[in-house]
Amino acid sequence: MNILDLIDKKEKGEKLTKEQLKYIVDNYLNGTIKDYQMSAFLTEIDILGLSEEETINLTDIMLHSGEILNLGIDNLADKHSTGGVGDKTTIALAPLVASLNVKIAKMSGRGLGHTGGTIDKLESIQGFKTSMSLDEFKNQVNEVGLALVGQMGNLVPADKKIYALRDVTGTVDSIDLIASSIMSKKLASGAKNIVIDLKIGSGALVENLEEAKTLANLMVKIGKANNKNIACVLTNMDEPLGYAVGNSIEVIEAIDTLKGKGPEDLTNLVIKLGAIMASMSLNITLDKALEKTKENLSNGKAYQKFQEWIKAQGGDIKNIQIAKNSQTITSKKEGYIKSINALEIGKLARKLGAGRLSKDDKIDLTVGIILKHKVGDYIKKNDELATIFYNEKQITEKQLLSCFTFTEEKVEKPKLIIDIIK
Amino acid sequence: MNILDLIDKKEKGEKLTKEQLKYIVDNYLNGTIKDYQMSAFLTEIDILGLSEEETINLTDIMLHSGEILNLGIDNLADKHSTGGVGDKTTIALAPLVASLNVKIAKMSGRGLGHTGGTIDKLESIQGFKTSMSLDEFKNQVNEVGLALVGQMGNLVPADKKIYALRDVTGTVDSIDLIASSIMSKKLASGAKNIVIDLKIGSGALVENLEEAKTLANLMVKIGKANNKNIACVLTNMDEPLGYAVGNSIEVIEAIDTLKGKGPEDLTNLVIKLGAIMASMSLNITLDKALEKTKENLSNGKAYQKFQEWIKAQGGDIKNIQIAKNSQTITSKKEGYIKSINALEIGKLARKLGAGRLSKDDKIDLTVGIILKHKVGDYIKKNDELATIFYNEKQITEKQLLSCFTFTEEKVEKPKLIIDIIK
Repeated sequence: MNILDLIDKKEKGEKLTKEQLKYIVDNYLNGTIKDYQMSAFLTEIDILGLSEEETINLTDIMLHSGEILNLGIDNLADKHSTGGVGDKTTIALAPLVASLNVKIAKMSGRGLGHTGGTIDKLESIQGFKTSMSLDEFKNQVNEVGLALVGQMGNLVPADKKIYALRDVTGTVDSIDLIASSIMSKKLASGAKNIVIDLKIGSGALVENLEEAKTLANLMVKIGKANNKNIACVLTNMDEPLGYAVGNSIEVIEAIDTLKGKGPEDLTNLVIKLGAIMASMSLNITLDKALEKTKENLSNGKAYQKFQEWIKAQGGDIKNIQIAKNSQTITSKKEGYIKSINALEIGKLARKLGAGRLSKDDKIDLTVGIILKHKVGDYIKKNDELATIFYNEKQITEKQLLSCFTFTEEKVEKPKLIIDIIK
Repeated sequence: MNILDLIDKKEKGEKLTKEQLKYIVDNYLNGTIKDYQMSAFLTEIDILGLSEEETINLTDIMLHSGEILNLGIDNLADKHSTGGVGDKTTIALAPLVASLNVKIAKMSGRGLGHTGGTIDKLESIQGFKTSMSLDEFKNQVNEVGLALVGQMGNLVPADKKIYALRDVTGTVDSIDLIASSIMSKKLASGAKNIVIDLKIGSGALVENLEEAKTLANLMVKIGKANNKNIACVLTNMDEPLGYAVGNSIEVIEAIDTLKGKGPEDLTNLVIKLGAIMASMSLNITLDKALEKTKENLSNGKAYQKFQEWIKAQGGDIKNIQIAKNSQTITSKKEGYIKSINALEIGKLARKLGAGRLSKDDKIDLTVGIILKHKVGDYIKKNDELATIFYNEKQITEKQLLSCFTFTEEKVEKPKLIIDIIK
């Protein structure tokens, strides 16, 4: 076997065997296959695609390129989001689900985004520890029902190396490579029950519905081939999720949601995802699970679990900082909000310092943007549109205003949950 | 502009402007665009193709990446072969054409092949100089009508760097990249009249006729877009050209051809290519030119020009070495020769030491294989099939016999010249 023959085979539209795919991944990891050769192969996949069988095999090969987490705890649940602007879902969802006696042992990323990842956001709670030993992790899951850390073990090194190359060779948008990347990481984390929140829209990984459905179906197939319970929820990411876009301000919004007074869209999403996870993990109907998630949001149990969890990881929820400087932007126009460009809002939050461009950048956890309205709201001149919380870096009123469009005609509130594939 | 956007644009099937192609080539040459990014772009071209306009533009950009040879001599003729086994054509063709008062200023390669390139082969003539100054080169073309050297100036550095990458990333077989590579080099050498010998078959760059015609048409279009007289001759390379496969033994076969006693296929090819070059350069009809080439092969003028040329470059044609050890292989079967696998014969010649695998390998100019028969010949048991000339490295009788297949039914002699595109 040699890489040139395999590149040639793929170019001719022939399928690669699992052995051939393994040869490529293994030899790329050990340096025998060079970046420029792997780049050629990934570009072929990006253009010509992989068969379902090839994608399932590739995922399995990547999964086995490193450790697979095994805590010895049955029936764990896990959730993954493909990432969106204002996405603080995990922070509210995880304790809600744990309050229903579903165990969650979750790893989350920092990532390069418009704001920090879940781990960054949680660090705005003073004292919150994002790393612990495997034993501590396991004990906390058993005792509290929930633990969330940054990294644990050497999971899926093949994905790390391949993703870094995809990032600089224009191959991040291949559906097959996205599916194998996400699923190899989820499978490596060892949970039996998996929910994936697949964001669609201007601020998301996937921009159109058809592509999102293809990706969702593929991930569900990979999950099932690996004997997992899995569902993929397609959600709208044209406007930011909730109102807060930043780090500490997102944590505060998540806490509000756990107290039953969060934004409508975020609350609905957390209830729906929570119910799907509970239904899978506890083997109850979705209706029953929906009832229970709503109940635990309103009776305080979800928030109680959140307090327990944060305390177990050393955090002090009374101590969450927000930037002292703020500027509130008001509307120069009147009408219904037709759109709030999630991608542009995200970029502005990053400009304030809420996100990183390269992995060594330091994030300012206290800055961000809090929207005052959502798409479909009717706005009069001089109504407040958003408040900017800032420190050294500031954005202009004009930049923020350009994220909004208005219309005289009534605008339907966009549907957040577009489809569920399982 | 940035490379990721351009990779993305190409992936979507959009055409790149000349400015965008130039951005890619220039920044690859200066190291801003990395090998793995160029590899992604070349793989896209390999799979999705370039438009004719893009290929013409890419050729022009590569052409202008370095020097363009200008000897101040009008109406020069040049010939390029895509390379085949036993291809000693240039050595006979160049003096034949020069004997008709067509001026030839030719650069030839060493190359990585089953045997050496034309330059290597000529070095088996003792004393033959393969490099000279630009002034010496120009003077020799003016005085003798013909000069042939290895390299001259820094021509088409973009092709050198891109070709090296294509070689290790499975992108050598892209018709558009082949066309731009060959034509940028031919255009850089400055001749007005260009003939390309495009080999088709098992020992050749292109294996099927349809692909060869596409490539030929593309090269002719690029040539015309650059105001050149150009013709592309498609020739069969399923069996070796002539009988000799090596270096010094090929030079001897070329000399025989110039004396009018060469192999039929090689002689016909030299006459045809020579006539096309003469017709273009002297602006005479092809029939008239054919008459003249045949005449100069039989009246000794072509051979006389050869002697003049070799002498001008310091060579002694009485001093051409052949390996002292030889082994003649006889047939174990009876019947018509159905095929002689050019590619395998080439590989065996390389095993004897006649060719290089990497550019620092040393070639043994004296070794090789001389076939005794061609496809279509009737062979009895124990008839001689071939003679191996060897030094340290030897091949087995079995290896050589496996290059031949036989049949009881009469076999047509294959047509050497398949098509001419101009």
